[in-house]
This record gives sequence, structure tokens and C-alpha cells, in this order.
Amino acid sequence: MNATDWLQLSRTVRFSDTDAAGVVHFQAILGWCHQAWEESLERYGLDAGTIFPGGRNEPPSIALPIVHCDANFRAPVLMGDALTIRLQPRRLDLGSFEVISQIQRDQQDVARGCIRHVAIDANSRRRCELPDGIERWIEASCLGQIQPL
Amino acid sequence: MNATDWLQLSRTVRFSDTDAAGVVHFQAILGWCHQAWEESLERYGLDAGTIFPGGRNEPPSIALPIVHCDANFRAPVLMGDALTIRLQPRRLDLGSFEVISQIQRDQQDVARGCIRHVAIDANSRRRCELPDGIERWIEASCLGQIQPL
Amino acid sequence: MNATDWLQLSRTVRFSDTDAAGVVHFQAILGWCHQAWEESLERYGLDAGTIFPGGRNEPPSIALPIVHCDANFRAPVLMGDALTIRLQPRRLDLGSFEVISQIQRDQQDVARGCIRHVAIDANSRRRCELPDGIERWIEASCLGQIQPL
Amino acid sequence: MNATDWLQLSRTVRFSDTDAAGVVHFQAILGWCHQAWEESLERYGLDAGTIFPGGRNEPPSIALPIVHCDANFRAPVLMGDALTIRLQPRRLDLGSFEVISQIQRDQQDVARGCIRHVAIDANSRRRCELPDGIERWIEASCLGQIQPL
Repeated sequence: MNATDWLQLSRTVRFSDTDAAGVVHFQAILGWCHQAWEESLERYGLDAGTIFPGGRNEPPSIALPIVHCDANFRAPVLMGDALTIRLQPRRLDLGSFEVISQIQRDQQDVARGCIRHVAIDANSRRRCELPDGIERWIEASCLGQIQPL
Repeated sequence: MNATDWLQLSRTVRFSDTDAAGVVHFQAILGWCHQAWEESLERYGLDAGTIFPGGRNEPPSIALPIVHCDANFRAPVLMGDALTIRLQPRRLDLGSFEVISQIQRDQQDVARGCIRHVAIDANSRRRCELPDGIERWIEASCLGQIQPL
Repeated sequence: MNATDWLQLSRTVRFSDTDAAGVVHFQAILGWCHQAWEESLERYGLDAGTIFPGGRNEPPSIALPIVHCDANFRAPVLMGDALTIRLQPRRLDLGSFEVISQIQRDQQDVARGCIRHVAIDANSRRRCELPDGIERWIEASCLGQIQPL
Repeated sequence: MNATDWLQLSRTVRFSDTDAAGVVHFQAILGWCHQAWEESLERYGLDAGTIFPGGRNEPPSIALPIVHCDANFRAPVLMGDALTIRLQPRRLDLGSFEVISQIQRDQQDVARGCIRHVAIDANSRRRCELPDGIERWIEASCLGQIQPL
């Protein structure tokens, strides 16, 4: 399986994503970033319930709270737009990582979002190493990315 | 093309759909109903921008405000659940219709939503007949449904 | 304290409540209904954390899942509108109740929502009686309502 | 009127703000930042409909699209938490500004968000100077802030 199989996702903009300015509301784009990440994990083969609480599994022993997010908006995104979301995960240290989402329409960048997570032990709430599954997903994803020399 | 091609949709529950009770937040389900309807129109061949404002087309001359919605929740829906959404559109009179969404997980009903729209002229804001595209979609959809004798 | 102190709430429509039709998105109104109910409990003197999970207290031993909701939309609601939300709680049986939200702008009804809950034991997931706090809030609220003969 | 009258806002965390991790979902916090800004403008005396589209006024001739947002999350925020949101607007150049939201609970920083806007002519979509109202609000707000030497 090629990395692009789980790192390049598609999404069509829906009516509820818009606001009265007639374009996508800025918050919706951050939502897409998280949802694209969830879809990526799933396609890579990780069951959502082993990573996030709220699934049918036992809640995972490591939580991944978000400590930072940012986004840049380059061009208006409209209802019905067919978007491509390219994910670039990056490990920051033993216990944290970020996922960048490049959002394109017709090969043009329209937005870019970043969500940064730290790993904490779900019981002690203390920092810990990333869960194995996330580590494997980051490694496999980085192999698939063209690395500049 | 068989009607089920555009009336039976799939959706995976995402983390942002949940609340602190650990299950899907009730509002999310009404959002899925509208989004499933949009996807159905698109699959049937109707460009979203000809039906909803906020797209890249000229805004449509007929608006379809929602006058009623309701939903019943039968079983908790959890993050990661793979759902099937079956749409049943029904014309109510010359200028109004409703779309019922039957939501299932593993062939079990988990929720059912209904959204009711009226057609109004976008300028005069007066009631009018349904847009042609919606009329065709309803007719084609009803043909595809098994009608009890 | 007069019942209207906790049953009549105010809300200003925000930009994120709107969609590209230029008016409030239908889902937002159901959100207001639940939030108005939470505010009402708080004003009445019930700590949210004793009723809903996700607070700083121990999670409550009785959960109140939503089994039904419905809403009617009578007039467009716009950004900046100052709304009044009047709550009418009603016990349905020993273990279920509904809260109706009448939403007005300038003394005109613009929308009406209803959310119906059942009480279940949080561990066994079996139906049980309403939590004491909710029972007191319903009783006190009904005393404050003018009952037609 | 003291600047803090319109720059220091209160908000109680609602159930719909949470996710299955049992704490506030990260997207909700960005929503609060925008809504706090809207409330601030309103308290300062600017009608929302003169600044944002979707109100009862004619749509404003200058639009304020968001070009960037970011947020840092320091401590979990839970349902029922009473928060204080302190706004710090800052003009970036003749046609852009940002609003920083410091979010506190019990005098402790729990999150900080930033939303950056540019002014564009609503018809030509070209960059222009800030609307007068926003300029006055920024100036008045900066007067009210304690400036370090």
C-alpha cells in the first residue's frame, strides 16, 4: 500500500460548513483536519477506538490532548467544493506530534491547518511516550513523503 | 442506475460528533441527515450549487427553508461506528417535501431523522412549487422504493 | 424567586449560528434549546455537574439520554437578533420528561423546539426514576406556569 | 465606560462544547473567541449587522475574512466551568487586525486563541482599510489596556 492511500483524503463541502458570508466558516476547516486524521488512521488500519475515547473498545490508556492548533486560509472555500486534504504528520519529541493538513481545490492551496498533540497517561495525566499505533502511523507516513535533501 | 445508489449512504462516526456522555451528541445526527441528503442529490446528478445558496453557481431562484425537523434515538451511537443512512423522500404537496433518514448500524435501527422543507421564491419569499431538480430526485427516488400494496 | 427567573432566558444570535442562506442554520436552534435548559438548571440552583457527565463532580449516577427531539421554524432568525427563550418542562412518566423551548423575537414566535429525555441508571443502563434535582426543577417550573382552566 | 466593560466577557461551558474525552472539544474554544469578539463589539455599541453579513441591515460594504487563527490549550476545560475571556485587539496594518482571547478559569489561564482578519471591499474583493467602527473599537480598546513601559 502506498502512503498516499491513507494520507490523501477527499471531502465535499456541505451546507452546514458555511456561514452567512456565503463561504466556509473558519471553524469547520479545523474540524476537517481532525476528521481527516481520524480517517487516515482508519485507512492505515488503526481502529479509532484504540486511539480515541468514545468508541466500542475499552478507553485507550494513553490520551492525546490537543495543546495547539493553527490554520491559514488562502482562498474562500464554497459549498459543493471537492477538496483534497493531504496529511503530513511529524513527531516533535518522544511524547508529542503534529499533523499538518494541506487543503486543496483544483490543485490550488485553499487552507492549511495544524493540530499538535501530546501523549499523557490517561490515569496519572502525566506525559508519556506516544501510543505504538500512532508511532507506526507516523513512521509509515514519513516514509511515504518525499523528503527534501 | 439503481435508486439505492443515491439513497443509501455510508458514514463513519467521528470524535467531534461525540459529547462527554461518551456517545454521539443528538445535534450531530440531524446534521448527518442534511449532509446525507446533499450527498444523495450530488450522486443523483444535481449540482449542490443549483439547490443551495453558497456554491459557485448563481444562488438558486428557489429557496428551500426548513420548517420542521424531528428525530428519534433508539440506541447509543459511538465513535468509529460505521453507519448506513437510508433516505426516503416524500412530497407533501406541490411546494413542500420531507426527507426521512433511517440510520442503521449492523442492520439495527439506531436513529431516524426527518427534515421538512417548503419551496419559496428567493426574491418574493412567497411559497412556490418545488424546483425541477428536486422534483425529479423525489420521483426517481420513490420509483426505487419498494411500495407496499 | 419567580419561576420566570429561570424559565425565561435571553440569547443573541451569533455569526457561527448562520449558514450561506443568510439565516440561522436549523441545527443551531436545537443547540440553543439544550443550552437554555442547562442555563435554567443552573439558575434554579442545580450544578450542571450533578446532572450531566463532563463536569468537575463525579459523573452522575443517573444519565438522561435524549430519545426524541423536534422543532418547528416559523420565521427566519438572523445574526444579531435578540431572542427570548421560554422553557416549559413537562414530566411524561416517572422516568421521562420533555422540555419545550418557545423562541421569540420582539414578542413574535420564531421557533419552537422540544427535547425528550429518559432517565437510566448510568451503570445498568436500565430505565429508572428521574433524578431528584430534575424532579424538583420540573415541579417548581410547573408551579410558575399559568395553567389554563 | 471602562474598557473592561466590553473587553472582559463571561461564559459558562455547555454540554455541547464537550467531546467523549470528557473535556471541551478544541474547536469549541475557537468558536468562543469569535463569539466573544461579537459580544464585545455589541457592548461597545456597534450593531453586529454593520460588521457581519447575515443581519437585518444591508450587508456591510467591507468584509472581514479570517486569514489565520491559532490557539493554545493549557488546561482541560470542563462542562459547567465559569470562564472569563479577555480580549486584546491589535491592528496589524491599515487593513488587518487580530483579536487575542485570553481564557481563564479561577484566575488561571486555560486557553488562548487568536483570530486574524483582513478587510476587503465586499464587491471588488480587494484589500481595503478597516471599517470605521472596527477602527474605533480597536483604538478605544487599546486605550483601556495597561501598556507595559
